[in-house]
Amino acid sequence: MEASPALSRIGLAGLAVMGQNLALNIAEKGFPISVYNRTTSKVDETVDRAHNEGHLPLSGQYNPRDFVLSLQRPRSVIILVKAGAPVDQTIAALSDHMEPGDSIIDGGNEWYENTERRIQEVSQKGILYLGMGVSGGEEGARFGPSLMPGGSYEAYSNVQDILNKVAAQVEDGPCVTYIGEGGSGNFVKMVHNGIEYGDMQLISEAYDVLRNIGGLSNSELSEIFAEWNRGELESFLIEITADIFKVKDEHGDGELVDKILDKTGMKGTGKWTVQQAAELSVAAPTIAASLDCRYLSGLKEERESAAEALKEAGLKEEVGSVKSGVDKKRLIDDVRQALYASKICSYAQGMNLLRAKSTEKGWNLNFGELARIWKGGCIIRAVFLDRIKKAYQRNPNLASLVVDPEFAKEMVQRQAAWRRVVGLAISAGVSTPGMCASLSYFDTYRRSRLPANLVQAQRDLFGAHTYERIDRPGSFHTEWTKLARQSKTGVGALN
Amino acid sequence: MEASPALSRIGLAGLAVMGQNLALNIAEKGFPISVYNRTTSKVDETVDRAHNEGHLPLSGQYNPRDFVLSLQRPRSVIILVKAGAPVDQTIAALSDHMEPGDSIIDGGNEWYENTERRIQEVSQKGILYLGMGVSGGEEGARFGPSLMPGGSYEAYSNVQDILNKVAAQVEDGPCVTYIGEGGSGNFVKMVHNGIEYGDMQLISEAYDVLRNIGGLSNSELSEIFAEWNRGELESFLIEITADIFKVKDEHGDGELVDKILDKTGMKGTGKWTVQQAAELSVAAPTIAASLDCRYLSGLKEERESAAEALKEAGLKEEVGSVKSGVDKKRLIDDVRQALYASKICSYAQGMNLLRAKSTEKGWNLNFGELARIWKGGCIIRAVFLDRIKKAYQRNPNLASLVVDPEFAKEMVQRQAAWRRVVGLAISAGVSTPGMCASLSYFDTYRRSRLPANLVQAQRDLFGAHTYERIDRPGSFHTEWTKLARQSKTGVGALN
Repeated sequence: MEASPALSRIGLAGLAVMGQNLALNIAEKGFPISVYNRTTSKVDETVDRAHNEGHLPLSGQYNPRDFVLSLQRPRSVIILVKAGAPVDQTIAALSDHMEPGDSIIDGGNEWYENTERRIQEVSQKGILYLGMGVSGGEEGARFGPSLMPGGSYEAYSNVQDILNKVAAQVEDGPCVTYIGEGGSGNFVKMVHNGIEYGDMQLISEAYDVLRNIGGLSNSELSEIFAEWNRGELESFLIEITADIFKVKDEHGDGELVDKILDKTGMKGTGKWTVQQAAELSVAAPTIAASLDCRYLSGLKEERESAAEALKEAGLKEEVGSVKSGVDKKRLIDDVRQALYASKICSYAQGMNLLRAKSTEKGWNLNFGELARIWKGGCIIRAVFLDRIKKAYQRNPNLASLVVDPEFAKEMVQRQAAWRRVVGLAISAGVSTPGMCASLSYFDTYRRSRLPANLVQAQRDLFGAHTYERIDRPGSFHTEWTKLARQSKTGVGALN
Repeated sequence: MEASPALSRIGLAGLAVMGQNLALNIAEKGFPISVYNRTTSKVDETVDRAHNEGHLPLSGQYNPRDFVLSLQRPRSVIILVKAGAPVDQTIAALSDHMEPGDSIIDGGNEWYENTERRIQEVSQKGILYLGMGVSGGEEGARFGPSLMPGGSYEAYSNVQDILNKVAAQVEDGPCVTYIGEGGSGNFVKMVHNGIEYGDMQLISEAYDVLRNIGGLSNSELSEIFAEWNRGELESFLIEITADIFKVKDEHGDGELVDKILDKTGMKGTGKWTVQQAAELSVAAPTIAASLDCRYLSGLKEERESAAEALKEAGLKEEVGSVKSGVDKKRLIDDVRQALYASKICSYAQGMNLLRAKSTEKGWNLNFGELARIWKGGCIIRAVFLDRIKKAYQRNPNLASLVVDPEFAKEMVQRQAAWRRVVGLAISAGVSTPGMCASLSYFDTYRRSRLPANLVQAQRDLFGAHTYERIDRPGSFHTEWTKLARQSKTGVGALN
């Protein structure tokens, strides 16, 4: 059976808002699409939207068989359901009606190993599989997301033309590329989310310092973030932050942001990023700090008790008396630089995590391309990513972003301001865990000599773990305690 | 068959140094012991040592069957082999000859879930099982370790008298207690090791600041640590650090510590601790920072290149010009206080991780008892642990060590010095990631209001994740961008 005009080019199952929006996006780009959802009202809803949003070529299907059979061969089905068991159930329901050479494309935030398992499972029926990271939220899905498809290259090839049109467009192409084999698309999306956590945390710390040390009002904050969005920090998250400070509270005076409870929700991807960093022996402290802050923000009642308990023990809420002496204009400029430098370190951590995984799995990730496809569509989209792309184009084997000549220069220029901001925050008792983590990371990574020699001596003393020397090869063990006691009694220490 | 004088009270299989030492310790306490090792030369070695170290009641066995049959019933066998597959192999070899009611006690650094699996597996033969954390290194094993047995209470009861004698002794009893069911003994030992990582990192940072900012010599450092070991910091790790600075280099001038390569090795327990903290939504940034530093220390060549690249970009190795203006005496006192306050936060993280796991698994851990059994024998043994024990005795449901009235007072007294040290280190470019992480943790936990409201606003803007308010119940969603644009054009913002 050849492709017939009655058949759709592609299918999409799972019609929550993300799925609906992505389906409409695909249809709008001129690719006839079939949609399906177990709760059939969602199918009707999507069909209505397709009609209302411009008579888009979208047909609703009400059972898995009709849905699958409504597609051109080789069939490609995108699924957008909750990660985990619902994905397996959807695969089971659809694959019964699919044929060898057909493809399933999971667009959810799935754990990469689940994708690798499913690649194996469906391959037994000859079905191809992609785990595709989709970033950009509901807006992105509708008008152009960043797409990170990994898995079967053939499955990717079958829909490459669609993905290229559907993805966000930036000056150097669509925000999609074939990521690599196996679960690489999910893994890259996971790290993207970890970086997103870091960005949001760093922005919130900049806000905290400007408000609590600088004394800036919401309208000043809105102006500052809008101004920052015209410079090196230009990005989606800075832009929306400027917007947020403008929104008035409909229930009272002032701005809505001040009325929002300071408890942050989260999903699994940030946690996975931190766990994978530990697994791969990669330091990712800025991303970890942002995750910790979400945990600690959740302990609102405990924090209120702690504030009380420590007040009773003599601690004022505001620790430092720095507020009065602060030069507001300089503080604002310093915070901008601190935010930028901290952000570079956070991205360096994320990219190095990707590199470690790529090496482990043989994914052969192209880091410049990853930075490029994050330039549009996704939550971390930023002008700055073009600089990262270029850094990896200059040197695909770059050990760390902070040693790229361009970034190194930027770090050096910004470090004085960065140290001032973190120092000020520390003396004022305004916590900046993300900025601190980035700065500690930078200062640890850039030092040729760390105090780890002492740690090795301790480990050798109590566990006979041995140590290396800086001046001669080999592995050494010393009877530290014995020699130290000899030295006490004036006897020359001999190994 | 009743216990006969020819039979040993207990057996121990796995005769590397730790196993040999623990067996000799047991024999020395008057409990006849049989020992076994696959490589039989180790059996001979142990028998020789038992003879030489005081004709201790220890008998060597050369095959699993004879070994098991040489034990009184119900039989208890401690195994001390490499974690993972070797444990399974040893269990298989021994359990063939064991009977219902007999016990296996794994003393290795095992992943707690492996212990839980093995408890199930051997229970099918009626065999009881303990996963027992053993801390204190080779010295501890021989002369009194800290023991953390978890699993079958009956198995524990069978050897309780032995463990009570073999463990380190402190003024309030032996350093052993029944931890709880399942893999709790391994889990507690894992967190102990995570805390140990934190302690070692914090001490190395104190050393780094005193050496590189204070300009202290090794002999001054040795004196300072020895002095600290007579105060609130009194502990094994501070004591051995004082010793380490005394040891001369036999291959050249000066002290050996300066010749040790600054690359730190590690085993799995630190990594597991960090991963479990993320899994359980517990912030453990100080422990994570110590793990990250081990990773970064390993990148010696990369760090040397980074130092070079950043020098070329204009960064001096020493960033700050703080060294000259430093009051050495005050710095030393400040660093002591910073170290102590940072340590409290690290222990708070470890204890809260244990609490979270205890709740999840229903282990009903007794935190005061855990602090007590760490007072002797193990690597983190310290006077300070008695204060922790008392804090949990005062309030078994303590939300965090830092809000215990005694510790709260100490934190408040030390915070000014702590902020000075971290601030100085930051301006000087001496990385203190552990102290920074502890301080950020403290400042985040003690603040009733965090900037997480902004993060929630961002999440609601791009992902419709909704938010709560501080002044009214419910879950809210706002069309931020639309309202921000209206406010731009002067239209009043309405939700």
